[in-house]
Amino acid sequence: MKIPMPTFNATTPDIIEIALEEDVGPGDLTAAYFCENRKAKARIFAKESAVLSGVDLAAETFRRVDQSVHSIATKRDGSLLSPGETVLEISGPLPSLLTAERVALNFLQHLSGVASITRKFVDAVKGTNARILDTRKTAPGLRALQKKAVLDGGGTNHRMGLYDMVMVKDNHLAANSTPSDLQSAILKLKAAHPNVRVELEADTLEQVRSFLEFTGIDVILLDNMSPEVMREAVALVRQRVTLEASGGVSLETVASIASTGVDYISIGALTHSVRAIDFSMEILQEENQ
Amino acid sequence: MKIPMPTFNATTPDIIEIALEEDVGPGDLTAAYFCENRKAKARIFAKESAVLSGVDLAAETFRRVDQSVHSIATKRDGSLLSPGETVLEISGPLPSLLTAERVALNFLQHLSGVASITRKFVDAVKGTNARILDTRKTAPGLRALQKKAVLDGGGTNHRMGLYDMVMVKDNHLAANSTPSDLQSAILKLKAAHPNVRVELEADTLEQVRSFLEFTGIDVILLDNMSPEVMREAVALVRQRVTLEASGGVSLETVASIASTGVDYISIGALTHSVRAIDFSMEILQEENQ
Amino acid sequence: MKIPMPTFNATTPDIIEIALEEDVGPGDLTAAYFCENRKAKARIFAKESAVLSGVDLAAETFRRVDQSVHSIATKRDGSLLSPGETVLEISGPLPSLLTAERVALNFLQHLSGVASITRKFVDAVKGTNARILDTRKTAPGLRALQKKAVLDGGGTNHRMGLYDMVMVKDNHLAANSTPSDLQSAILKLKAAHPNVRVELEADTLEQVRSFLEFTGIDVILLDNMSPEVMREAVALVRQRVTLEASGGVSLETVASIASTGVDYISIGALTHSVRAIDFSMEILQEENQ
Amino acid sequence: MKIPMPTFNATTPDIIEIALEEDVGPGDLTAAYFCENRKAKARIFAKESAVLSGVDLAAETFRRVDQSVHSIATKRDGSLLSPGETVLEISGPLPSLLTAERVALNFLQHLSGVASITRKFVDAVKGTNARILDTRKTAPGLRALQKKAVLDGGGTNHRMGLYDMVMVKDNHLAANSTPSDLQSAILKLKAAHPNVRVELEADTLEQVRSFLEFTGIDVILLDNMSPEVMREAVALVRQRVTLEASGGVSLETVASIASTGVDYISIGALTHSVRAIDFSMEILQEENQ
Amino acid sequence: MKIPMPTFNATTPDIIEIALEEDVGPGDLTAAYFCENRKAKARIFAKESAVLSGVDLAAETFRRVDQSVHSIATKRDGSLLSPGETVLEISGPLPSLLTAERVALNFLQHLSGVASITRKFVDAVKGTNARILDTRKTAPGLRALQKKAVLDGGGTNHRMGLYDMVMVKDNHLAANSTPSDLQSAILKLKAAHPNVRVELEADTLEQVRSFLEFTGIDVILLDNMSPEVMREAVALVRQRVTLEASGGVSLETVASIASTGVDYISIGALTHSVRAIDFSMEILQEENQ
Amino acid sequence: MKIPMPTFNATTPDIIEIALEEDVGPGDLTAAYFCENRKAKARIFAKESAVLSGVDLAAETFRRVDQSVHSIATKRDGSLLSPGETVLEISGPLPSLLTAERVALNFLQHLSGVASITRKFVDAVKGTNARILDTRKTAPGLRALQKKAVLDGGGTNHRMGLYDMVMVKDNHLAANSTPSDLQSAILKLKAAHPNVRVELEADTLEQVRSFLEFTGIDVILLDNMSPEVMREAVALVRQRVTLEASGGVSLETVASIASTGVDYISIGALTHSVRAIDFSMEILQEENQ
Repeated sequence: MKIPMPTFNATTPDIIEIALEEDVGPGDLTAAYFCENRKAKARIFAKESAVLSGVDLAAETFRRVDQSVHSIATKRDGSLLSPGETVLEISGPLPSLLTAERVALNFLQHLSGVASITRKFVDAVKGTNARILDTRKTAPGLRALQKKAVLDGGGTNHRMGLYDMVMVKDNHLAANSTPSDLQSAILKLKAAHPNVRVELEADTLEQVRSFLEFTGIDVILLDNMSPEVMREAVALVRQRVTLEASGGVSLETVASIASTGVDYISIGALTHSVRAIDFSMEILQEENQ
Repeated sequence: MKIPMPTFNATTPDIIEIALEEDVGPGDLTAAYFCENRKAKARIFAKESAVLSGVDLAAETFRRVDQSVHSIATKRDGSLLSPGETVLEISGPLPSLLTAERVALNFLQHLSGVASITRKFVDAVKGTNARILDTRKTAPGLRALQKKAVLDGGGTNHRMGLYDMVMVKDNHLAANSTPSDLQSAILKLKAAHPNVRVELEADTLEQVRSFLEFTGIDVILLDNMSPEVMREAVALVRQRVTLEASGGVSLETVASIASTGVDYISIGALTHSVRAIDFSMEILQEENQ
Repeated sequence: MKIPMPTFNATTPDIIEIALEEDVGPGDLTAAYFCENRKAKARIFAKESAVLSGVDLAAETFRRVDQSVHSIATKRDGSLLSPGETVLEISGPLPSLLTAERVALNFLQHLSGVASITRKFVDAVKGTNARILDTRKTAPGLRALQKKAVLDGGGTNHRMGLYDMVMVKDNHLAANSTPSDLQSAILKLKAAHPNVRVELEADTLEQVRSFLEFTGIDVILLDNMSPEVMREAVALVRQRVTLEASGGVSLETVASIASTGVDYISIGALTHSVRAIDFSMEILQEENQ
Repeated sequence: MKIPMPTFNATTPDIIEIALEEDVGPGDLTAAYFCENRKAKARIFAKESAVLSGVDLAAETFRRVDQSVHSIATKRDGSLLSPGETVLEISGPLPSLLTAERVALNFLQHLSGVASITRKFVDAVKGTNARILDTRKTAPGLRALQKKAVLDGGGTNHRMGLYDMVMVKDNHLAANSTPSDLQSAILKLKAAHPNVRVELEADTLEQVRSFLEFTGIDVILLDNMSPEVMREAVALVRQRVTLEASGGVSLETVASIASTGVDYISIGALTHSVRAIDFSMEILQEENQ
Repeated sequence: MKIPMPTFNATTPDIIEIALEEDVGPGDLTAAYFCENRKAKARIFAKESAVLSGVDLAAETFRRVDQSVHSIATKRDGSLLSPGETVLEISGPLPSLLTAERVALNFLQHLSGVASITRKFVDAVKGTNARILDTRKTAPGLRALQKKAVLDGGGTNHRMGLYDMVMVKDNHLAANSTPSDLQSAILKLKAAHPNVRVELEADTLEQVRSFLEFTGIDVILLDNMSPEVMREAVALVRQRVTLEASGGVSLETVASIASTGVDYISIGALTHSVRAIDFSMEILQEENQ
Repeated sequence: MKIPMPTFNATTPDIIEIALEEDVGPGDLTAAYFCENRKAKARIFAKESAVLSGVDLAAETFRRVDQSVHSIATKRDGSLLSPGETVLEISGPLPSLLTAERVALNFLQHLSGVASITRKFVDAVKGTNARILDTRKTAPGLRALQKKAVLDGGGTNHRMGLYDMVMVKDNHLAANSTPSDLQSAILKLKAAHPNVRVELEADTLEQVRSFLEFTGIDVILLDNMSPEVMREAVALVRQRVTLEASGGVSLETVASIASTGVDYISIGALTHSVRAIDFSMEILQEENQ
């Protein structure tokens, strides 16, 4: 048997409508007055090296503008692109191609930006067991797409939102709460939602040690610790729970963090500070000559 | 008389709902099981220097999660922030504050990122007549907010979308189109939509010169020209139409482009490659003690 | 080269859904119980002379009710129709044709009403330079469609809404505002939104004269002036800005207003007081005999 | 006991949002740059005699733009208005009043137009038993509001749509259908939907006579008959079913049609050819002086 | 002529989207990682005797998940099913079939549950003139579908909601209201809405008697009366108005209620207490071998 | 510290709008014509013993119909109710109370039905370690609400949908798939989504045994096994993974299943075959006398 690995397929019908509405609105004036109504072929290609994400969204954007437009993705999400490499071939009425162009490129440039920076972090920790995680620090309205782009870049998804995992931080606990209060809350949560994992945030080794006493803990977050302290935490925990490192991770520091033996390294910048990848659409030829 | 200058008030009811839906979804499990149901006060502050944008959205986000939450913006959009400076004070049930925290911060970090980089470009061209323009290279679903953030940073808005201005590029014109075809299209457009401005894209000085023959042209885009060629274009045009420079503009090159005498410099990176500003929420005190 | 002139293509996906929802709601009881489930052909035709608008919406309405319905528009929007002339041929299941009939006709009768009255005004000013403008006095929910119908009738579109042009009226200015306040506001607006045009409303010749001092004014509105005063305004302005006449325009008076030399005449009645054109659907033949 | 007669309260949350979206869109540029941010009072009044409809929608429109705006309706829907009479008093921030003004007036001018023409038809048939009915020939998206305006004008509502009553026309019946087929369909409909009324369209007296044989018929539509033939139909039917006259009804002919003794006269022009009533908003005074 | 009897076609585009959104959300993780991406055939069948309802919704659910899935309904809504009988044949990509399976079954099991219990009540009153009515006691969001399922089971629809019929209960009338107040309200209602039927709720024979004095009453509801009292009410009314029995009806008692001669028996349990019918999807074969 | 246990707060803004739209639609005709417009007080109470769920939805329903209605929940969700016990006190305009009544009761009767049957199963397994789980067999559109009602009844939530947990069934695996294929898929899933739990369905003891070899399995589903076989499975597994029993569970059999030592028992009938709890609204007094 070959179990295929289709990427996690985010259903995002609305964002395309929203993006077209804000760009096209009541109509494309340039296409209406300055564009020959002929059939054309075009291609979209990357102008720099990148990891592709969003090609299906780009294709669907053309279809939404005009159902008679046909397109073929020549690369799948997750592919490594060389400069100049075509990712989508499109044919249809020229005005429709030009009306859809910018929105399609906006999806590609942003999502491929996410996938590409993710890949750089993933490559930086190769040879260790650490995996690169995203966070909830996403662009409003684009979370599902950004998280899929993280997968396309070889990264790993943290929780989707507040509803599918528990993360307990300092602010959640009162100064006078006792360990047995916390234990009791964990057990009540697990009783009602047995499939939900629990993560606790630790700022010190002492906290890490105390958390190991609890039943029902799945992950401990090592928040803003130095690599040295992380290494001690790893030794302390000895794989009884999963460890996630977080805080101030950059391409320069990620390898040394990974070398401490933590299981996961979460990085907000994968989704909150995205550099767009440069894509372009080229009109190829006139069909009706 | 004092004519006040309220910033252009983008109405964005839906994006908050969308962002809360993707983060909170069917409910905040951590707040439900691990959070005291007491009143609390909190503040949101910048952890680095920045230009503020999105503070009203952040305030509204808390109100959408819980109508009993009160908040006061202590800074207005467009303000310069020092590290540590408070922008929003919030009071209400602690679980509601924690549920809304991430979405509110996601708006602030992204939009203030747009405003802050815009301000850097604006500062770099001070002393010239050039103004910094945004483009249509925006994050899907966030265009109106990003364009308002550009204003908060002292920038200038290009067209909102395809519907409120015409920009004619190479792709719009066929190889065999004559100048009189183009002139005829401009006049037809202006006849139907007299309030719509027309911009033509020029790649060479020769094109610039030929465009000056047309009636009804408002702007010429100088695409990817060197500062030297731009300077010639400025001399050629002598303010008969507006000139916009575009292509490969960076903080290093923008001043020399501005010095050529062009009226506008448009920069996709203002909105397509945003570095988030670091904001944080701090719980201040317990009220019910 | 032939640059085609496709009319400005308003994207109106939702209004068809809304109109079907309010007419069909939970189902068409008559079609369900009193209609043979056979294939049929039908045509829609005008019962009086008219200018056509809305034929694509009508065709799409049938498709929304039943994707197996096929239709061909035999006339394009903007065409002059004689009584009895067919505009749409439809074939498909008879119950679907009858369910969609009324909504399709409602679009046609209203929008062709807008186009037809617009054409009458346009014809009335032939031989002058004046153009007929619409206003923001539209039927709620139908603005984009009505404005396209004005184009179909040969008219010209004023601004789409409050967001794409500035019009300063008496109510905007305080009694004690100085000319320099107003000039300052104009310059700030143009700095942030260079593509936005500015129009000032004038009630007297004196106001017109004072407005000519301002930098950044594009249009002056001559509000409710007599043709004689308008003529003086035209002489005064000498094409330095565009002039729009407004107020109490009828088919009887429009020619004399146009003869004053104003550039535009705006008429609320094009969209706020529409007389429907009489269209009808005729079932042509049974296919399954 | 006093049973009050509140008018049928159409719930129309969405149309206000839609109308504001199309007029204000991403923001009111004039209010943002050219309007003092002071409190103001205003009133809306009719500039001609009319029957009021839509005053609650107008009030709600201001509230949607700015929840701090307060308004008081000084007249209720259905009231007769003299020229100059105030219908709504509003107070709040001046920019908000000006931003909402046009949409509020658009509702008032259209719906009061429906109510006013309805009242003219109702007055024209006074002294007879005939009642004035609306039809399904409504402006897309505005049916519920237009039908309430018909009630405000003293008219009577026909069915809301295809879902709440049956009307069988020629097109529904095949050439070879027998009376027993039709009778059978009526009984099946009534068995499944006992609360649904059945109307049959008749073009000739002969058809009227044959319809009287059926069980389960509630109304017969007399389509495009002369008053003489209608009078014969009334005599024939002797109140065994309800009679509705339809086709080519005008203010000139409606009285003679009513005098034939028919129960209802339906008129498409009440909603498909509406002349707007002229309403205006006046800023009353400055509060912050 | 053969007038066909297509069942009342409820248009329910949104509920399928809603149901898929809540089940699939950001994606089907099992299908993405554990499912061969091959073509497959499947069938849906009942595992117990039932009356079918919802088969078109089930088919459409598969199409919404993946437009390349094809399906054929082998039974129509309203059919009697034996255990094991196939109702839908489906072919398409296996992951799409498995993603859509649960939502499709959820529609079938619930709606066929409504149709099946309705049929039991209908069968129980065979031989009498009484018809089985549903009520407004429906599952939120599913009313139109549940009411169509009642028709599929041979039942009869009461009003769709508060908008298409009047039912006056005790709570509507004040203690001091007089019969002439009520008569006046009925006449005003009928004047404005002649197609709307009026039902009055009666708790005693005396009330029934008094209601017979009114003009414009269509139905009297006999609320929670014993069969003996109902029989007296039937004798009293002598078919001058329609009688509906209501309150505490079960499969055990419905026949004796029907034998009293009432026209309708309304039963909330048809829609508020539905037992699901057991349906299952079986993967039939691999196509790509 | 006291960590409170607020129930998992499902955000369900839309379902109330949907339910009101289908019941009230264009307006409540009875309230408009037959109801005094006076203030009134009312209470909602259970007419039978039950576990309460949905009281906040009911309160919100009244507020949506009329923002001036005030209500106080006198019982919280999860409370045991005796017959006659009040759960909600409401005051406001009588027409608004009557318009909202049915939708509010529809939420209460359905959700309390879910909570009440859940409680019966929970009580039946008291004294064992087994917990009662819901399934994805929910009423379309009501999943989040039904799952919260299961918690109110003391039950435990299984996954929310296909997106937050993996369950691998027979249909997912091809005949020729090897254990190493499956192991590889599990590891790939866990690499991308470390917080997602994996459940495998087993039909035989042999399968259970083979599943224990895998790394990364969290739960094994024992599908339709007899209590004897389940007991063997429990012994075999010795708590290395969690065990869920499923298939044909009733109030009669659940205790013996629980006694086998399985961790969870999942029951579709909690949500797919709900018997409504009888709630009623009583108008208490007139305020305006």
